Amino acid sequence: MGLDIFFKPKSIAIIGASRNPERVGHVILKRMIEIGFPGKLYPVNPRAEEILGIKCYSSTDEIPDQIDLAVIALRADMTPQALEEAAKKGAKGAIVVSGGFSEIGNEDLERKLLEVARNYKVRVIGPNCLGVFDPKDRIDTLFLPEEVIPRPRPGEVSIITQSGSLGSALLTMIRKEGRGISKFISYGNRLDVDEGDLINYLADDDETKVIAAYIEGVANGRKFMDAIRRASMKKPVVILKGGRTSSGDRAVKSHTGSLAGRSDIFQSAVKQSGAVVVDTLDEFIDVPVALATQPPMRGDRVAVITNGGGFGILAVDSLEQRGFRVTPPSSKLMERLREMLPPYYPVGNPTDLTGDSTPEQFLETGLAFTESGEYDALYLIPLFGVPGMEPERTKRLLIELVNRSKLPVVACAVPTTPEVEETLNEIERMGLPIYPTPERAASALKGLLEYGEIRRRIEHF
Amino acid sequence: MGLDIFFKPKSIAIIGASRNPERVGHVILKRMIEIGFPGKLYPVNPRAEEILGIKCYSSTDEIPDQIDLAVIALRADMTPQALEEAAKKGAKGAIVVSGGFSEIGNEDLERKLLEVARNYKVRVIGPNCLGVFDPKDRIDTLFLPEEVIPRPRPGEVSIITQSGSLGSALLTMIRKEGRGISKFISYGNRLDVDEGDLINYLADDDETKVIAAYIEGVANGRKFMDAIRRASMKKPVVILKGGRTSSGDRAVKSHTGSLAGRSDIFQSAVKQSGAVVVDTLDEFIDVPVALATQPPMRGDRVAVITNGGGFGILAVDSLEQRGFRVTPPSSKLMERLREMLPPYYPVGNPTDLTGDSTPEQFLETGLAFTESGEYDALYLIPLFGVPGMEPERTKRLLIELVNRSKLPVVACAVPTTPEVEETLNEIERMGLPIYPTPERAASALKGLLEYGEIRRRIEHF
Repeated sequence: MGLDIFFKPKSIAIIGASRNPERVGHVILKRMIEIGFPGKLYPVNPRAEEILGIKCYSSTDEIPDQIDLAVIALRADMTPQALEEAAKKGAKGAIVVSGGFSEIGNEDLERKLLEVARNYKVRVIGPNCLGVFDPKDRIDTLFLPEEVIPRPRPGEVSIITQSGSLGSALLTMIRKEGRGISKFISYGNRLDVDEGDLINYLADDDETKVIAAYIEGVANGRKFMDAIRRASMKKPVVILKGGRTSSGDRAVKSHTGSLAGRSDIFQSAVKQSGAVVVDTLDEFIDVPVALATQPPMRGDRVAVITNGGGFGILAVDSLEQRGFRVTPPSSKLMERLREMLPPYYPVGNPTDLTGDSTPEQFLETGLAFTESGEYDALYLIPLFGVPGMEPERTKRLLIELVNRSKLPVVACAVPTTPEVEETLNEIERMGLPIYPTPERAASALKGLLEYGEIRRRIEHF
Repeated sequence: MGLDIFFKPKSIAIIGASRNPERVGHVILKRMIEIGFPGKLYPVNPRAEEILGIKCYSSTDEIPDQIDLAVIALRADMTPQALEEAAKKGAKGAIVVSGGFSEIGNEDLERKLLEVARNYKVRVIGPNCLGVFDPKDRIDTLFLPEEVIPRPRPGEVSIITQSGSLGSALLTMIRKEGRGISKFISYGNRLDVDEGDLINYLADDDETKVIAAYIEGVANGRKFMDAIRRASMKKPVVILKGGRTSSGDRAVKSHTGSLAGRSDIFQSAVKQSGAVVVDTLDEFIDVPVALATQPPMRGDRVAVITNGGGFGILAVDSLEQRGFRVTPPSSKLMERLREMLPPYYPVGNPTDLTGDSTPEQFLETGLAFTESGEYDALYLIPLFGVPGMEPERTKRLLIELVNRSKLPVVACAVPTTPEVEETLNEIERMGLPIYPTPERAASALKGLLEYGEIRRRIEHF
């Protein structure tokens, strides 16, 4: 595939590599070493013989082998020539992290860079971008050190972002919540590779289960919508559009110069093409996590099982506010719940397992709700800190519930202590998405409902 | 004031104190010692001579002095007699943490406990509650250890909660975000002291700047609304109502047996009485933090200053979605901004200080927006991790901006590293509320707008 060169290169030239730890060209080389890039690394810098223990070349031309990919971290006006030299050395792709192009009014320079790219048929990501972070293929061109952008573990969600600063914040948030990432691409001024190309590529990427895209405006509307349509046949595509309001749209024009077009039209076209559209930064992280592990919802009826009464009520409110039905159990199911639980437990929807709850009760109650056929999803609130909820056993039985219930399951739980937080992270890694507030769990479920509707629409054709 | 006995007792009997670290009566005594309660502690237990180094009494009767407050941690059926004995020893207040009353159908026992309270004129918080946490007065009857509920530092927001499990989660979240608490009261089955009493008390409490109440249903609607009306003349009252939807209302009835009444009528009565009504758990924590340090908004025009373009756009979207006006600057202000900032900075609303930003630019730009008279609040997005944003200087200059601008100011920033997180916590403690997502900062500002409208309504009378 066309963009493989960015993720699976055998050799990379880092043009503008630097001995100075403060410089972008140093951080990138250092990160590529630290992440364990399995191919060859060729630092290029006329004033260094060796950087970080790796032989350095005074020009691209001097590199003894052919190169697949160039990462260019030079002053803007030096990038067209650097790209040309890289192309002559065989590079099929280049990531230009340098800023100083159209974003500050330097349209001419950007055009010049584009000309080189076209002439030599080099695909270019950037300029003015963070580039690529891909922990599985071991590529990291983010030019900010780990102290500034903590990198997440490998995962199943790929993110593309038009905003670098938002992208770095997203990585931080994902890392903080113990979540993972498959591929992350910050594409900046999208001289060449645009959101349409990236979605097309990720649609075919087996390591990407969900595509999440932060978009301000698109380069080519038709191509973008086609890419979403094609990708959403294979996997969920989640879109957060910056500039959804009239003031936001004005800000987009000033920020990127993108012609976003009428935001409401854009949003409905994106939805029509098969994307799950989200509205907040939290949702942009939370919804993909649910989509990566849970089946889509086939209907809108949710059963809530809690061991904290107040939490159960807030969960029910947030579900109903998002259009779900939190229907009471049939009398048959009520009878079954009453038989299996102590008489003082408030059963129904929600069912409150109280402070006397055990993980076994979560499992049995969850299975009873599932087997009734009366619900389309389970919403669990397993609060730790009561004697019966021993973390290890709780983890095991909640995962058993997820595996035995064929329904989508999400959970809300509060990481009270570092130990509980680690348990919750493990539970999530094992396949049950967990959110810190009732509203965030409900929004994640909403993503599963919307993707279910999209799947049914697609299958209907 | 009537409820002072719960917060400023000179002596406390802990009836049901235990040597067993697993028991509630042990945890409470331990926490009262650890928090440094300045008065006398009298553990009561017939089978212990000493617990945690403190002399233990075999019955309340044997305590040599008069007691002010009793904390009762006994089996439910033993509580009426224990309350009577405490009353005879002079107790004017009792916190009954024991469960096993009306919440599991034991209405008779609860009535019996109430009779004793009425006969002896003892005020009772509980039963079936966590009781009181008051880090300034050094009271802590939360019967779960610090490993289960991490306690927050002293602060300016007081919380009352009808749900104990939600209450403990709130404390955890507040602690996790580095925020503080003035008084926390979980009042359980509200045998005697109810939400109206508590709001009345906190209205007069100088250590409480903001009252936040999680309510499912109220004991006495008229008294509750009167308390809000009275309190909101003095300080903001923030209400989160559990059971806002029809399914949520059904869950409330099953959880607490409260007659919540029609939720929409309740909500509008609460608003009419002067409360700021919030809709999510995050808002319940975020809005009070803003109200505790920022003046109310006098109008709905917000200026956004960012150093991350994408964040600025999401901020603008979330503001406009909440009804704010993110109006462009006048040509005069535009001119001033252009004069003071580098030519390639996108100025306007938002103004993007880009990756080249410095804290000085945040200060100067913020003052320019303020002095223009064109805005009612500042919304800052200071992202760290770019070279110019040195944490210590940033902290100093942002606080200078808050102090020199008379406008309300809120901020959105991402805690990238533990160091940045600590800096952000310090900035917030010094008076600038900071939120991790654009939407949460916008919701906090919305609280300031609503409280401004409430103040104007009150002053108009």
